[in-house]
Parts: sequence; C-alpha cells; structure tokens
Amino acid sequence: MSKDLISQENIVVGEIANGLPLTIPVYRLKGDGSGPSVYIQANMHGAEVQGNAVIYQLLEQLKTLKLRGDITLVPYANPIGCNQKSGEFTLGRFDPITGTNWNRMYRFNNALPAQIAEQHASSNEDTIRSALKDALVADINAQLNGPDYSLTTGKRIALNLQKLAHQADIVLDLHTGPISSQHLYCPEYAKNSAQYFNIEHVLLIPNDFGGAMDEASFCPWWSLSEELTKYGRELSVQVEAFTVELGSQEKIDLSAALEDAHSILSYLTHKGVFVDAAYQPKAMTRYGCMLDDYIAYYAPMGGMVEYLAPLGGHIKAGEPIAHILRMERYLCEQPLQTLSFDKDAIAILHFASASVNQGTELYKFFTNVFEL
Amino acid sequence: MSKDLISQENIVVGEIANGLPLTIPVYRLKGDGSGPSVYIQANMHGAEVQGNAVIYQLLEQLKTLKLRGDITLVPYANPIGCNQKSGEFTLGRFDPITGTNWNRMYRFNNALPAQIAEQHASSNEDTIRSALKDALVADINAQLNGPDYSLTTGKRIALNLQKLAHQADIVLDLHTGPISSQHLYCPEYAKNSAQYFNIEHVLLIPNDFGGAMDEASFCPWWSLSEELTKYGRELSVQVEAFTVELGSQEKIDLSAALEDAHSILSYLTHKGVFVDAAYQPKAMTRYGCMLDDYIAYYAPMGGMVEYLAPLGGHIKAGEPIAHILRMERYLCEQPLQTLSFDKDAIAILHFASASVNQGTELYKFFTNVFEL
Amino acid sequence: MSKDLISQENIVVGEIANGLPLTIPVYRLKGDGSGPSVYIQANMHGAEVQGNAVIYQLLEQLKTLKLRGDITLVPYANPIGCNQKSGEFTLGRFDPITGTNWNRMYRFNNALPAQIAEQHASSNEDTIRSALKDALVADINAQLNGPDYSLTTGKRIALNLQKLAHQADIVLDLHTGPISSQHLYCPEYAKNSAQYFNIEHVLLIPNDFGGAMDEASFCPWWSLSEELTKYGRELSVQVEAFTVELGSQEKIDLSAALEDAHSILSYLTHKGVFVDAAYQPKAMTRYGCMLDDYIAYYAPMGGMVEYLAPLGGHIKAGEPIAHILRMERYLCEQPLQTLSFDKDAIAILHFASASVNQGTELYKFFTNVFEL
Amino acid sequence: MSKDLISQENIVVGEIANGLPLTIPVYRLKGDGSGPSVYIQANMHGAEVQGNAVIYQLLEQLKTLKLRGDITLVPYANPIGCNQKSGEFTLGRFDPITGTNWNRMYRFNNALPAQIAEQHASSNEDTIRSALKDALVADINAQLNGPDYSLTTGKRIALNLQKLAHQADIVLDLHTGPISSQHLYCPEYAKNSAQYFNIEHVLLIPNDFGGAMDEASFCPWWSLSEELTKYGRELSVQVEAFTVELGSQEKIDLSAALEDAHSILSYLTHKGVFVDAAYQPKAMTRYGCMLDDYIAYYAPMGGMVEYLAPLGGHIKAGEPIAHILRMERYLCEQPLQTLSFDKDAIAILHFASASVNQGTELYKFFTNVFEL
Repeated sequence: MSKDLISQENIVVGEIANGLPLTIPVYRLKGDGSGPSVYIQANMHGAEVQGNAVIYQLLEQLKTLKLRGDITLVPYANPIGCNQKSGEFTLGRFDPITGTNWNRMYRFNNALPAQIAEQHASSNEDTIRSALKDALVADINAQLNGPDYSLTTGKRIALNLQKLAHQADIVLDLHTGPISSQHLYCPEYAKNSAQYFNIEHVLLIPNDFGGAMDEASFCPWWSLSEELTKYGRELSVQVEAFTVELGSQEKIDLSAALEDAHSILSYLTHKGVFVDAAYQPKAMTRYGCMLDDYIAYYAPMGGMVEYLAPLGGHIKAGEPIAHILRMERYLCEQPLQTLSFDKDAIAILHFASASVNQGTELYKFFTNVFEL
Repeated sequence: MSKDLISQENIVVGEIANGLPLTIPVYRLKGDGSGPSVYIQANMHGAEVQGNAVIYQLLEQLKTLKLRGDITLVPYANPIGCNQKSGEFTLGRFDPITGTNWNRMYRFNNALPAQIAEQHASSNEDTIRSALKDALVADINAQLNGPDYSLTTGKRIALNLQKLAHQADIVLDLHTGPISSQHLYCPEYAKNSAQYFNIEHVLLIPNDFGGAMDEASFCPWWSLSEELTKYGRELSVQVEAFTVELGSQEKIDLSAALEDAHSILSYLTHKGVFVDAAYQPKAMTRYGCMLDDYIAYYAPMGGMVEYLAPLGGHIKAGEPIAHILRMERYLCEQPLQTLSFDKDAIAILHFASASVNQGTELYKFFTNVFEL
Repeated sequence: MSKDLISQENIVVGEIANGLPLTIPVYRLKGDGSGPSVYIQANMHGAEVQGNAVIYQLLEQLKTLKLRGDITLVPYANPIGCNQKSGEFTLGRFDPITGTNWNRMYRFNNALPAQIAEQHASSNEDTIRSALKDALVADINAQLNGPDYSLTTGKRIALNLQKLAHQADIVLDLHTGPISSQHLYCPEYAKNSAQYFNIEHVLLIPNDFGGAMDEASFCPWWSLSEELTKYGRELSVQVEAFTVELGSQEKIDLSAALEDAHSILSYLTHKGVFVDAAYQPKAMTRYGCMLDDYIAYYAPMGGMVEYLAPLGGHIKAGEPIAHILRMERYLCEQPLQTLSFDKDAIAILHFASASVNQGTELYKFFTNVFEL
Repeated sequence: MSKDLISQENIVVGEIANGLPLTIPVYRLKGDGSGPSVYIQANMHGAEVQGNAVIYQLLEQLKTLKLRGDITLVPYANPIGCNQKSGEFTLGRFDPITGTNWNRMYRFNNALPAQIAEQHASSNEDTIRSALKDALVADINAQLNGPDYSLTTGKRIALNLQKLAHQADIVLDLHTGPISSQHLYCPEYAKNSAQYFNIEHVLLIPNDFGGAMDEASFCPWWSLSEELTKYGRELSVQVEAFTVELGSQEKIDLSAALEDAHSILSYLTHKGVFVDAAYQPKAMTRYGCMLDDYIAYYAPMGGMVEYLAPLGGHIKAGEPIAHILRMERYLCEQPLQTLSFDKDAIAILHFASASVNQGTELYKFFTNVFEL
C-alpha cells in the first residue's frame, strides 16, 4: 500500500466566535474486511502532542502493510484545546470557559446493552455485534441531531469523534501525562492484550463509565456481555479500547514515536489487523495495578519542588520523593523539607511545574503492584 | 448589640507556592441559644463578589439586633478564586490548575444518615440532631486529619468551610450568575420558606448530591428523615440550606446589597433567629421551576451576540432571544441570525461575554413554570 | 449600489499550531476615484466586538450609496485575540504567549518621510503622495518578505493590516474601552475633523509613534509635512487616522452600532467620500483633552469596587468616585473606603471588574478639559 | 557567621483584591563595611524558580563566611507572578491583567546623572558615589510617596525592590530562560568581570534602558561616567549589575543551585566582598555576543516542534535546528518540515512548548560569536 491509498476527510466539529469552522483531519485506510477495524486518535488534551507524532509514524508504516481491517487515524482531535495558549504552555486539558475536562464528555447510554441483550439473546455473534454497533451510532446521531441548542462545545466534538470510534472493533486514545513514564489504561477483561504493547506499567480499570473515550468505547460491550449472561448467553467482550499514555506532554520526539508506533503495530498484529506483519512485542516485565490502588499524592505544603522519585522506578515506603524549598521561612523553620510516601510504589508521573500550592497533585503512584 | 460583640477569626485553609498562608476571615455573633444558628458565606466563585457586600450590610444590621441563635459570616470564602485574574476579569469559577469547579468539592458521606437512623431510631429530636451534627463534623475532621498528602487544594478549602457550616441549622451560600436575575436554589422540602426571601424565581432541587455547599448541608438531614421512616419515625428535615443567586458577577452595588440583606433578614426573622425583629418579606408573585425543567440553551452557531431576552422576564416560544452577528459571511449568507427558544420560559441568566463558540451556554431558562 | 458590488477576500495572516490558517475577511467597495479612499477595521482587541456591528451597519448603509473613494472594511481583524477565552470573557488585549498588546505592533519606519521630502521637495502634491504611499507599502512588503523566521505572530497580523491601511487616505480603527463612554483619539492637526463625529470626548494626540494603528497611519504623513518645511515647502497632512472608542467591551448593540455608523458616515461625507450623501453630525458640545492630561487613576488599595463616577460626566475634585469594600478588616478599620480624585475631570472609562489589586487601573480621566 | 547573623524583614509591596498584603521576604547579612555591598534577587518572573534555590545555597554558604560588605538577598521577588497559575504551569512572565512584563517596570530618571555630574565634577569619589546613591533612592521614594493613585501594581513592586538594589554596589538579578542554557547579561564596561562567573555564554549589553533591573542599576552609573567626561573627569562605573540566566524555568535542582552559588561566590570573592574566601572560577572558554547579534528565530509556520539544536552548542548555518510536524497536511504536502538557520550560531534557548503558531519565538541564537 502506498500513500495514495490513504484518504483524508476534514470533519467539522464546531464553529468559533469569528465564524470559522473547527475541523479535524481524519485519515482512513481500507482493509480487505477480513480483520477487525481500528480507530486511533491523539491530542484530545491540547498539550499532549506526542500522539500526533505516533500517528505520523503509524501512517509511514501502514502505507507499506496489507490490511485486513479498516484503520481510521485522527490527529489533532481537539481543535480548541490544541490551540489554547496561556503563556508559553498549552492550556488544553479543559474547556477554558467551563473548566470541563475535554476527556470527560463522551457519552454512554447504559440502556442500550440491556435492550440489545433482550432483543438478541439468541442471535448469532455477528448479528449481535451489528445490532449494538448500529444502536450506538444511532444513539450518537440522535444526540447530534437533537435541538440545535442542546450541545456544549466539547460534547459536540466528543460525539463526532465517538461516532467514528463506535464503528471500530479496537479503539486507542493516545494521551500523555504531565511529566510521565509510559503506562496503559487497560480494561480488566483485556488484561492479556497488555503484553503486546511495549509498555511496562498497566493500570487495570473496571467497567465504570467516567466520561473518557476508552470507557465510552468498551463499557457498552462489557455491559452487553454481562447482560447476556442473564439470558444464559456467553459472549466475550467484542471491543477492546485502551488509553495509551505515551510519556510527557509538551514534547515531540520522533524516535520515541517510532518506538510507540511499533508497540501499537505489535498489538494490532496480535489482533489480526494485518496480512503477514512481523511486529512482535519486546520482552519486558510488565507491572499491573488496580485503578483503586492508583494513588494521587497531593502536596502537603506549598513551595518549590525538586522531584526525586525516578519515574517508572520502584520506590520504598519512607524514601525521599521530593524536596520542598520554602524560602519564606529560612530563619524560622527548616527551609528544605523532604517528602516521602508511606507505601511501596512505582512513581508513574509527577506535576509539570516546580511550584505548587498545598494540595496540588504532586505524584501519582502505582501501589499493590503485581507482575502481569 | 454593637460592633464590639462581633468577633473575627482568620482560618488558614491552605498555603500557596511562595509559602504564604491562604486565610479566610470568619465573623461570629453570639445568640442567647434560644434560636437556630446560621452560617452564611460568599464569594466561593471568584467573580461573584456581591455576596461580600451583602455580608457587609448584614453585619451593619446585625449589630443592632438581639440574636437568639449564633451567626457565622464568611466573606471571601475562596482566597485563590478571589484573586485569580486572567485579563481584566476574575477567573475564579474553577481551580485554574485542574478545572474543577470550586463549588463541587464539598463532601457528603451518605453512610452517616443511615447509621444515625439505626442508632437513634427511638431517641428524642435533640439527641438525634446532636448525633448527626457530631457525626458530620467528626467525618469532616477525619478528612482534614487524614494523611497530609490526601487532600486537593480545593477540597481543603471546602472541608474547612463545611466544618463551620455543619455546626449551623441554616446555611446560605451567596452566589451570582454571569449576567443574571435573582434566583434561589431551594430544596423541595423547604418550599414554604422561599416566600420569606424577596426573590421572584425559585428553583426547586431534589435530594441529590452534586458537590455544592447547599446540597452538602441539607442532603444528610433530608436523608436522615428518609432513613428514619424505615423505622416508622417521622422527623422533619432539621436543616435548611439555600444557594442565593444575587444577580450578576463582577459587580458591587451597596444599595442592592442592602435590599438583599433585608431579604435574608426577613427569612431569618421567620425562622426565629432574632428577638423582636421586624423584617417582613415583600409582596410579590414568586415563580417556581423544578431543576429538571431548568434548561441550558447552548449557542447553535459561533458569532457575536446581542442578547434580547429580558432577564427575569417571561418569553414566549419562538420569540427572538438573541441576534448572532456573523461578519465572516456577510456576502454568502444572512449575516444577522435571530435565535429563539421552542418553549415558553423565563430567561434567568445569560453568558457574560458577547462572543461565543458554537456550544457556549448562552442562556438558562425556567420552563414549566408555576406560581409558588 | 447593492450587496453585489461588495467584494470579499479572506487574507491569510498566519497559521496556528494544528496547521489551520488564520484568516481575516476583507470587504471592499469601489468608488469612482474622485474622492479619498477609506480603511476601517474592528476588533483588533478580542473583547472589543462592537466595531464588528458598526461595520455591519456601515455595509448596510454603504450598499445604498454612490462612492467617490474606495472603501475597505475589516471586521475580526485579529483572529487569535477574537477567539481567546479564559473563563467566560475574551482575553484578547494581548498575545497570550508574550503579553504584547496587539495594538502596539504596527510599524513606522521614520526614515521614510525624510527621504521622500528630500527627493520630492519640489514635486507636486500628487507625486509626493504617491511616492510616500508607495514607499510605505514597499517598506511593509519588505518586512513581510524578509527571512521567514523574522516575524512574530502579532507583527505578521499587524503588517498585513497595515498594508491595506497604507493604501487609504482615511483610516479608522474601531475599539472600545473596558466599561467606557465614547471617545475619539484624534491627531492634533485633525482637530477640526472631530466635530463631524457624534462623539463628545476627544483626546488630542501628538506626533509620537507608540505602535498603534492610528499613529502608524498618520505619523509618516505628519512627519512628511514637518520634513518638507525644512525645504520651505508647505504640505498639509495628507492622511487622517483616528481610533474610535465606541463604548464598552463584551457588548453587541445593533442600535448603538447604527448610531455609530451614522457618526462615521457623517465624517466621511464631510471628507467627500460620497456623491450626494446627507449624513450630518449632531449638535453637541465636544470636549477636548490633551493626551498628557489623560490621567490613569490606579487603585490606591486592594478591594471590591463600587464605581460611582458617571462615565462621560464631569466630576469635581474631591467628589466620591468609588467605594472600596474591604471585608478582611471589618472590625479593625473602616471597611468601606471612599475614593476621590484631586482634580476636576471627566470620567471616561473604568476597569471592567469589581475586584482590584492595589495598583489596578481603576479609572481614566480627562483633565484640563476645554471645549472644542 | 551562623544563621543567627542573618536577619529577615518582610516588606509589603502591595495588596490583593481580598485585602491581604503582598509581601516579599528580605534576608540581610552585615559586613564590616570594608567591601562592596551586594543585592541579589530571584523569581521576578513567576516560573523562573531556580534562583530561589541559588539563594538558599548562597545563604548556606554565606553563614560560614566573614563579610566585608553587606549582602541583601530577596527570593520570591514577585508575590503575584510566583502564584499565578493557568493550567499546570506558572503564568508569571507578565501581569495577567495588563500583559506588561514584570521585568520592564523599573525606573531610570536619566536627568540624575547629569545633575550629579554638574554638582560634583570636582568632588572626590566617595562624595560622588554617595550623592548619586542618595539621589537615586530619593527619586524612588518620591515615586513611592506620590499621589496614592499614581502607581501600577507592578511599578510598586519594582520600585520597592529597586530601592533596596540602589543601596548596593553589586546587583544580581537571577532569571532563567524557558528551556535554556546558562548565560549572563553583562554590561559592556564590566566585560572583565564575566570571567569570574562559571557561565560559558555572555551577552554584552549597551547603556540603554529598557526597564529591566540590571539596566536600572547600572545605567545611572554608566551615564554618570559619561557625563563626568564632559567636565574632564574620569570615573570608572561604580556599580556592576548582571542578569544571571540560570537555565530552564519550572525546575528546582539543588545540586545545580550549589554550582551556581559557587559561581556567584567566585565573582563576589573577586570583587572583595569576603575576608579570606577561596572561591575560584572554573577554567572554561567563555563566548561573547553583542546584544544586537542576539537573534530571535520565530516559527516560520505553525505546527508541532521537535527541537534539534543542542542548547549551548555551536551550530552551522543550514544545519537542521527543528522538525515541524504538520499532520493536517499529511497527504497534500511534506508533513515533516526541517528548519535551519542561515547563520553560524550558538543556540541559547528555545520555546517551552512543543506546539507553536507561525511567529512564536522558537529559538534565540548568539551570532557573530567571539571568545572572551
């Protein structure tokens, strides 16, 4: 396949104050229909740009491959967040008007799986799959075609993306942390798939909907499986969806992006998306953590922070994880405080800035870690 | 009573990056103990400053009155939001780091009412009231005294305020809309109290906890009532809590504040907070609306807005509510679009700015309005 | 003339991070060449939207008129500022990355007037005018065509607009204050023209270049006049340029815009831009103030502000202009401070927000006022 | 000397909206009067925090030294900038209300040097020095004691700091770049002093006042020298002032801070500030560049940036300095553009974010470099 077999469509997802349209580029590659279809998006949060580079490297690879399933790739998924500066940095984690996190606006109509299960308890797999896919897309369309005053800016963007994602069997949402090691948000049922990504740290998440793209993609199918058991029917979860955390925000690194593209291609190879592709996962120890054991550590005091915990590294309870410099009180108290955490843990990410208020999220830690 | 009988305490609710403490002034007046106690705060959202002026006018009145119950008054409730500028305006609706709405961080431990009901199904009213009050304050203290890394900046502020609020029988949280007419968030069970405020528009809200101060204050007591019915016990809801929306943000008006103080004093008089006070509500038609019928109208297109609907006024379905000017398309389409709403309604508030993206919240409307 | 005789061009003035072009719509009407040409732009500062409505009303009028000179109208002059929100308000007074005021980035090459004067000391008026116009446009083009790494985002926007403006004989830059009465920035030499606008308050400005559009437009021509006197040549200043301050920001008012369009059409009628137009200025007393006497009044303390001075109204030295509410110190000092100004003055504008730091610009005053 | 000999004063430099004071901690160490006095401040720009760590390390060293001259150390010089977040990063380069760069608000009354030269053309050095110092401090006091409405927020902060700085013979203002190698702003006359700092890259700046602390400190003394030559009097410039650029913003590194403290102590040793101190500069090649040859490179297109030029490294004209990824145009043009600079240069700093608009400052380069 060459670049000629990639098609581009620019979808309109909104309109800004001076009347110009908000558009998102969508790249599509056609498969022969014999494998699962794939949807990959990047940069829903404005500062998390590395996913665009990964999509670039994916396209460079994909144009040399023979595809079984269709692949849809969406860089720059959020045309507002992507371009929202305040000072030098990109302020694109939430809608600057409302504060709503751009990745909490997807939709999950939890009535649908039960309805489909009831109607299709004895249908074959293909029929069930089509029925829920059609219902999900129809549900999104109903939202998009409701009264023209019924959608927020972010909801309209989210629904347009979700309409594309619901048509796929595999959904990858490419994010980054602030300053972060790589990690994978993986639904518990898909734990076995985690070994095909070259990502050491895996967060196992339950069937709860919190508004994110990965949850919006797999919750309906997970719920469908559960609903069908009420009718004595077993059906594996038909869709896999992951949030891939690529590393740190505000950074483009094309070599790292190539590595990440290989990691994703390894997973897609395993899922049978390609005819004769040779991508293999790397040998590495993968560590898992349940979402409830993923602990945020908020700054116990205000000050200037020297981060000490190595990201991706294992720390012991009580070891220093940060110094807090407090020059306001040089004479009246110890101006250099040492912080520690009271559990053994893996430090996954830390705050992007060196100055914090009391209560700023300083670190996030995997605890009760196990090998996958 | 004179100014001498008011006491001030500055509570520390956090610490900023350069080590300076975040403090909030708390004013207290002692009653003789024969009436309900009162907690009133203002300015949790940074731009909503008028509540401070109302507290000023309340203090000026209260120092001439004889109190049955204690009164606690907290202006400048949010020392971060209050001082957060971005351009000329105050950007204080949400934490600038996380996007979280400052008024969605209060706590409700919904296990407590059931526990108290179980333990005190046959206790007397005073005992029950004390038991839940104590449990609520203890629960907040447990949060405040947890591991020092466990609280976000906003949660620490919220819990400190809530600790004060839980000690009162009446809680008023003074807010404003963006550009807004006055309205009252009133729990359904307290509908009869709405007539004592001089506020024409009343939103009746259910026993759902969404994180706001009013809900955090009344939900435990409403739930206690409901739990006690399981034991065949009837107990009216012991606490009343309201969010009072005073009008528009970014505005100080001392005469309007005196009016609003009179409105609050009228309600407190009715509740028996004073010995011999003569504050009476004004005669006016009060309109109610159920929370589910409070409809947000999002801009159906981007552009520059001329707002046409009179705030607080009744509009008919199909009447013009705004012009949207779109100069980008002067030649190729109608550059001046007229918007309408498809329901009869009262326009309660509109967006603060004249330029909007598609999907910006343009108006909020009362629909299915009834007279209270 | 009808709408058909208006042409539109969208000029590209930059490119944002996701690669989308920044474009500005430019509307042009052709005259018969017998009168001066006109350039009018609006909304260089993002929140100052009313100028777009004035351009709308101008276009509605102009399409019924017969023009002697060409007219170019540019709404939405700043596609970044126009769409930059931070909270509900538009944060478009300065580049959010650098802090540079968007209206301080125009160019004035002060070598050009001297060069033209030297070369054309004895040429006729038309030749001189063409020579300087050509030199100004060539100078802008040289900047735009320099090394591709040599221009800031704002400079590129400014130069593109200035290229259009330099081709006109009359330049109007439509702005607004924060909360403001109407006023006109008028170069001293053009004082007589001020009476044709329906604007009561006129600020007379000298031949100093501070980076604004009006100055960038008239300074070269004023300097040319001055340079020519060195050669014993008298030439009136050939270009008039004004900044028209329409009122308050964040507001669209189509009726006021029609009034303002009439005011501008009255001035253009006086300058001979139309064949047979009947627009006449209103009778009113116009007050002048020299730029050096335009005094900024910075908040002498932090607090919450009730603005008292009527905008456009004459105040006496010592009269109250604002209350500052300081609830932090209710008990220990007077919580309601009254501010005054030590000069007789006209209050032209005040700050947009009700909460200020010590040192925030609270008011701007005309002092040493005279009747024009 | 021990910690006991350090004194602290908190100076009040303003007041915020909720009435709380803005304070700055000032640490002072007394010398025996036999050497020059020193003023060092840090963190005038909010995100440039590393200077606070340098002041910490300086204090730790200084308390073991015997001082000839007094030393004043001011961390957290800007209590607004330091605490201004917008998203995760600190937005403290400019006043969030006005856009004015906090380091462009210092004062230089250029009439003073001429006055002192005229009055003291034949006085001795000590008298001249005292006369100008007194005049400078008196001039600042006159500003601070003017009408209470005459100072902006930033000006009040700047003047308070400058009053301290004017009392010293040596002034160091500790800054950082965005992502940056170390460099020193050095006035041309003090070129020989540059070799005592352990800083490879030195920018030589002329006697022009642009509003910064270093200029505000040395311009009066440089001008005095120049003025005195008119009277046939030679006087070396009596004050040295530098802006020390420590590296990257948003970073605390205590080891690097210790290195930087040594570098500063080496310079102060050379200037005779200590009795018997052994700090020596490191041997290194130091490169100089004239300010006019310090070239900003603005992004020639919008996109996502991979920075390639090593900071502090020498690059050749035409070598790649960055990749710009433009995924919007993957199919219709080359999506990965390579940028180069047309001059041999040293890359000193680059932009902090990976996504840029056309015209964002991407790099700053030393050109026409020479060895010092």
